[in-house]
Amino acid sequence: MARPTPLSGFPEWLPDGRVVEQHVLDTLRRTFELHGFAGIETRAVEPLDQLLRKGETSKEVYVLRRLQEDESDGGAPADRSEKQLGLHFDLTVPFARYVLENAGRLAFPFKRYQIQKVWRGERPQDGRFREFVQADIDVVGAGELPYHYEVELPLVMAEALGALREVGVPEVRILVNNRKVAEGFYRGLGLEDVEGVLRQVDKLDKIGPDAVGELLQTEQGATAEQAKACLELAAISGDDVGVVDRVRALAGSYDAVTELLETGLAELGSLVEAAARRAPGVVVADLKIARGLDYYTGSVYETVLVGHEQLGSICSGGRYDTLASDGKNTYPGVGLSIGVSRLVSRLLSAGLVAATRGVPTAVLVAVTDEEHRAQSDAVAAALRARGVPVDVAPTAAKFGKQIKFADRRGIPFVWFPGLPGDDGSAGPDQVKDIRSGEQVDADAATWAPPAQDLFPRVVPAAAG
Amino acid sequence: MARPTPLSGFPEWLPDGRVVEQHVLDTLRRTFELHGFAGIETRAVEPLDQLLRKGETSKEVYVLRRLQEDESDGGAPADRSEKQLGLHFDLTVPFARYVLENAGRLAFPFKRYQIQKVWRGERPQDGRFREFVQADIDVVGAGELPYHYEVELPLVMAEALGALREVGVPEVRILVNNRKVAEGFYRGLGLEDVEGVLRQVDKLDKIGPDAVGELLQTEQGATAEQAKACLELAAISGDDVGVVDRVRALAGSYDAVTELLETGLAELGSLVEAAARRAPGVVVADLKIARGLDYYTGSVYETVLVGHEQLGSICSGGRYDTLASDGKNTYPGVGLSIGVSRLVSRLLSAGLVAATRGVPTAVLVAVTDEEHRAQSDAVAAALRARGVPVDVAPTAAKFGKQIKFADRRGIPFVWFPGLPGDDGSAGPDQVKDIRSGEQVDADAATWAPPAQDLFPRVVPAAAG
Repeated sequence: MARPTPLSGFPEWLPDGRVVEQHVLDTLRRTFELHGFAGIETRAVEPLDQLLRKGETSKEVYVLRRLQEDESDGGAPADRSEKQLGLHFDLTVPFARYVLENAGRLAFPFKRYQIQKVWRGERPQDGRFREFVQADIDVVGAGELPYHYEVELPLVMAEALGALREVGVPEVRILVNNRKVAEGFYRGLGLEDVEGVLRQVDKLDKIGPDAVGELLQTEQGATAEQAKACLELAAISGDDVGVVDRVRALAGSYDAVTELLETGLAELGSLVEAAARRAPGVVVADLKIARGLDYYTGSVYETVLVGHEQLGSICSGGRYDTLASDGKNTYPGVGLSIGVSRLVSRLLSAGLVAATRGVPTAVLVAVTDEEHRAQSDAVAAALRARGVPVDVAPTAAKFGKQIKFADRRGIPFVWFPGLPGDDGSAGPDQVKDIRSGEQVDADAATWAPPAQDLFPRVVPAAAG
Repeated sequence: MARPTPLSGFPEWLPDGRVVEQHVLDTLRRTFELHGFAGIETRAVEPLDQLLRKGETSKEVYVLRRLQEDESDGGAPADRSEKQLGLHFDLTVPFARYVLENAGRLAFPFKRYQIQKVWRGERPQDGRFREFVQADIDVVGAGELPYHYEVELPLVMAEALGALREVGVPEVRILVNNRKVAEGFYRGLGLEDVEGVLRQVDKLDKIGPDAVGELLQTEQGATAEQAKACLELAAISGDDVGVVDRVRALAGSYDAVTELLETGLAELGSLVEAAARRAPGVVVADLKIARGLDYYTGSVYETVLVGHEQLGSICSGGRYDTLASDGKNTYPGVGLSIGVSRLVSRLLSAGLVAATRGVPTAVLVAVTDEEHRAQSDAVAAALRARGVPVDVAPTAAKFGKQIKFADRRGIPFVWFPGLPGDDGSAGPDQVKDIRSGEQVDADAATWAPPAQDLFPRVVPAAAG
């Protein structure tokens, strides 16, 4: 087998990169659990018709085929009763299906987190992968879901991402908007194709306000004044409730105040207010946030890494009045999804964070000679029983070579089992900190490394 | 959308089942890390030609196709330079590729653990799934790998599975054999098609000794005496080194002692001896263990849950002299793989273990009325800051209803924020253990639940 090369769009990390990713995942999981979200996993596949239900062909679904089908009859499914399956492209569609499938056995409102890989056959680019990890939180109600969850969920994400600041993850800014504000404003202006207008506004970052203004007139049939009003709304942002007053004043100046707009502004205001109190400086109302997806009906969220805005959103979501429906019940929800691979890939490639080592091992137990390997194994067992990650040298090479083995892996301590002296009694064990060179007598029943050396840590990188 | 039904072969758990699975995964990870194994993940896909390299069509590989290819040109890949991809059916093939791809950046011997889903398009049966989680450990050397790893790796698995005993997982029995023993014995008998003989012996559990003896004669051309000798070897088992003497005596009686047999017996003997010392009663030499796969060259392992032997092996593996090779270097390895889904599925379906609750939440903070929700949020934040998983009631319903909300989810404590009295000063907060009904004054800055109530625990089930 020739040396294989990486597959574009399918990221993999070396062991020290995986330590970083694992730390991110552990931190997210802990925060989600502290907030009462239950962890679930769904299967990687869904029936193809469900994946395409929202017309999501842009996600470039991967379709599965069993190899044996191919061989037995030239490509046609051997068993026609088997549904065609595809890999899920997000965790929302599978979660909606899980809720419907298990509705009778879940307690609502149901809060869940879900951390899994998803797949999209899109063209790989910087920060855009074909296989990547998402970490989602959602709360879903049966029939109804109080508004306050639209305030709480982005704050949970702010806390989760904030808990990563200490290891060198940059500050985040959560940009929020409310569909009711946009829709109320556009309808007040007399623009009825709200989806169409949102689709054009969503292009602002890519093509700029002049081109969007042009498109609003040529594609959506807006007048010059209507287009101007849409651009003025999109230009409003701020992290205090003053933003609500500015939107209301703008709408008033165009005589575009509607009941829907007022409802949206009340919601947006209470979100901004709660955020200013509970996570100052993190949440910013940004009236240009449109989120292309048509199923959002209230708050919408996007999140940028400060200083890495061109990476795009690393955590997005919103409120949907109909996450799922089985004809009898409707399940409204609100949720956000962190693009873990996009985040971790940037942390590693930009040298923002680093692992202190790529192996869990805190101590390498040296082997004096193969006849005494059992003595080294016994030391290792005693340390492990007390929670210390330990490896034993692979061979009884010269001690210098065994120390090099540890050094190459970043293992901070090497343990030397005591040797029997001339009188037959064993000498004391010794442990060496190979960074300082300090070597002291030690007993495997009591010695422990300093807490910061026990497991690999993730720290801000020197280059960051 | 009508209520969806489960897909056969693609298991999913309800939240309390996921608590059990997560506990199993956390326990395995911790044991692997204490033994110095570095965690990695590989992508879910491999080039199809690599997946089929060992002729593994029996694993029924799932092949991927991008939906857009299909639509744009009727099924032919749009970009012919793209390799055909399939989902991995185990974690060994991807690991071998990862080792070759990153050989220059890894330190050997390289010990890694890997816990991921794999996919096989086989017909689903009890304990056999199309999508399932495996937990693998392997150590791989560059050019050489000392024998002692063949002793250590099954003992790591014994420790990992042993650590699950306290939550109700049954005892395991690790059955070990050595390919050199079988090969040396067969060649000593004059049977040269070792693979063929192993393939027949592998059928013993399914069709019994008489039928295997018949097949050895009709299919492998063995004499009646050779067939009898093979069956006598396969009947030997035991958990001490006496087993080595019995094999040697048997070989002697057929004049079938070879150098290879002696090498194998020395290895098997030292494994059984070390296991008897370090994990008494867990490892049993069983000379009928054949492991169908042709790449094993030394020790082979299978593991049964005692009392659930008909479930099949839940942890298998062995030594392979060529895990990977890039023409210049050869990478020998030894590893084992736990079938986590098979294990967890049995634990749940047989009612052997249970989670104390399906949500992480230890405390539900009640909401007196929506105007005072911020007061409840503040209590929740104070408790979470001290590591207590907390949820806040979804609505300010009657307290009885809020207690029912907690009870339905198994949340042990409900917190009542103090209300302002007639004089305007807030009364004390109170917390109620809804199991005992006991209710006491409490301060969110100091109160904590008993340690056993902090997170859901996994415990032996009453039915187990």
